[in-house]
Amino acid sequence: MATRWGILSAGKISHDFVSALRTLPTDEHELVCVAARDLKSAQEFARLHGIPKAYGSYDELARDPRVEVVYVGTIHPHHLSATKLLLKNGKNVLVEKPLTLNLKGTQELTSLARKHNLFLMEALWSRFLPSYEFVMNAINTGIIGDVNHVTVNFGMPIADVDRVNRKELGGGTVIDIGIYTLNVVQMAFGGEKPTEIKAIGHLNENGVDESMTAVLKYSNGRTANVATSARVKYPCEAHIVGTKGVVRIPFPFWCADKIYLNDVKYEFDLPQPAEICNFWNSCGLRYEAEEVRKCLIAGKVESAVMSHKDSELLAAIMDEIRRQIGVKYDVD
Amino acid sequence: MATRWGILSAGKISHDFVSALRTLPTDEHELVCVAARDLKSAQEFARLHGIPKAYGSYDELARDPRVEVVYVGTIHPHHLSATKLLLKNGKNVLVEKPLTLNLKGTQELTSLARKHNLFLMEALWSRFLPSYEFVMNAINTGIIGDVNHVTVNFGMPIADVDRVNRKELGGGTVIDIGIYTLNVVQMAFGGEKPTEIKAIGHLNENGVDESMTAVLKYSNGRTANVATSARVKYPCEAHIVGTKGVVRIPFPFWCADKIYLNDVKYEFDLPQPAEICNFWNSCGLRYEAEEVRKCLIAGKVESAVMSHKDSELLAAIMDEIRRQIGVKYDVD
Repeated sequence: MATRWGILSAGKISHDFVSALRTLPTDEHELVCVAARDLKSAQEFARLHGIPKAYGSYDELARDPRVEVVYVGTIHPHHLSATKLLLKNGKNVLVEKPLTLNLKGTQELTSLARKHNLFLMEALWSRFLPSYEFVMNAINTGIIGDVNHVTVNFGMPIADVDRVNRKELGGGTVIDIGIYTLNVVQMAFGGEKPTEIKAIGHLNENGVDESMTAVLKYSNGRTANVATSARVKYPCEAHIVGTKGVVRIPFPFWCADKIYLNDVKYEFDLPQPAEICNFWNSCGLRYEAEEVRKCLIAGKVESAVMSHKDSELLAAIMDEIRRQIGVKYDVD
Repeated sequence: MATRWGILSAGKISHDFVSALRTLPTDEHELVCVAARDLKSAQEFARLHGIPKAYGSYDELARDPRVEVVYVGTIHPHHLSATKLLLKNGKNVLVEKPLTLNLKGTQELTSLARKHNLFLMEALWSRFLPSYEFVMNAINTGIIGDVNHVTVNFGMPIADVDRVNRKELGGGTVIDIGIYTLNVVQMAFGGEKPTEIKAIGHLNENGVDESMTAVLKYSNGRTANVATSARVKYPCEAHIVGTKGVVRIPFPFWCADKIYLNDVKYEFDLPQPAEICNFWNSCGLRYEAEEVRKCLIAGKVESAVMSHKDSELLAAIMDEIRRQIGVKYDVD
């Protein structure tokens, strides 16, 4: 039986997610409905993607009995309220990253999901890419020895994008792109909590960070550093340095289709999405959708690949970095 | 007329320096004498390199009237006393990096050199390499736009080397290899002082750092990060990220013979040294010797490429990093 999807928000990332979802077998993934605050947007989205039902409010989607799981693709500050609405209406939820703006919101959602025995996952799509599966396999089989140091950076000239620029939209590089750098670190160190974090950053006139550079200390002599910029294009690559070798995730590391393992290149071709997409390698979003289906079939309320604990640790680290560089959201 | 060199210490780095010096014309660089605390070592060194005079004490070298400039190649903690001895005896001095263990010692030497109107330079050889000249030229001509971010790391399995391992020998990665990472940052940001430094590190049982990762904040939205390890081999490369492009200094970045400017590779072949050397690309040490000769001929007491201010800023940054991670030398 197909997994029956509702799509909450008809924005750019929802477009890409659905374009990726449509590359999967229709007897596995079925698009039930899409909701946007503006009915016309929803209808247009539905027409383009062949989705039978369009709603002009999130409430209607939340009450649609056919919907089994909802993809939340709104801007960051709406993740919390939209997901609460869905969980309270008995829906499983896949929420775009960051799950919410901070640890408090993240814990509110994970608690609520557990309380209602519903599936909840942060859509940290990198984790589910075949390239990242290869990376984790390389680490777990010991081919690079013990991971000792991770260095990763993500910089793009996106400072003028509202989502990044404005505090009320959950702006700043830490939670928008920094999350991808921290995700690599967290994966490479097996979800361990850093013993110390130190960060510097530059804020824009709205009080959100245009750049950030942080160091993370881990047990047993291990360290990491991450860097972001909304002003300048960085190499956008990750090095996972082990005692016996190195994994390099080249540009664009967050949606890699190539991996260098001890300088040997491995390729992971992505399929073409059903429609032209907004973001790099967006067809890679299909793998997180497959994970959702797998978990739902198995009756799980969270994914082992991107667990609630993973989301909470990421949120805690981002909170601490923002605290140190002075980025404070209204909800903090 | 040739520049008349005395060599203080007959150790590994002195061997490499002299092997590099011997690739330069003898009517430009003349080896006058070598001194070691053990006369036999000095004699052996002199024999190998065809140096006419060998001394069993630094005093004798300092008093040799034929010596115009001395290369100090002792272990770190002896730089200060040896250089003071030389300056007080009217000798110009080229001192292996780090100039001394801390800012206090560095300032003592730069003051003393100025007082005696003698040339003093920290032997930060990277700065004088043709590859680094190319990098600085790429930056200065604006081909990568304005430098916005620098990331550089240096890790090698050298934790068991006494020089790195023991506090009384000036151990720790910060001053031994971290200096090369900070040097790249400092060059790329034109010698500007960082507005903020934050560092983490892991210390060994002797209280010196086996690894360090630091972030540096600069004016106008600029940032840098550096990382070192004495345990694990890091990529050992540097990225200088500008608003319009990137310079990558690949392994071994501190003595690079290749540079990638916006992914185009440029090669800078180094000549063969006169003898087999101990360290990577050691023949590159010849370029700092050429700089010394140029300065002496011009009657300068410091080099514009590696000025006293440069050494002092490097020392100040390293002091601050050590302070934050808890590495304290007896002389601090």
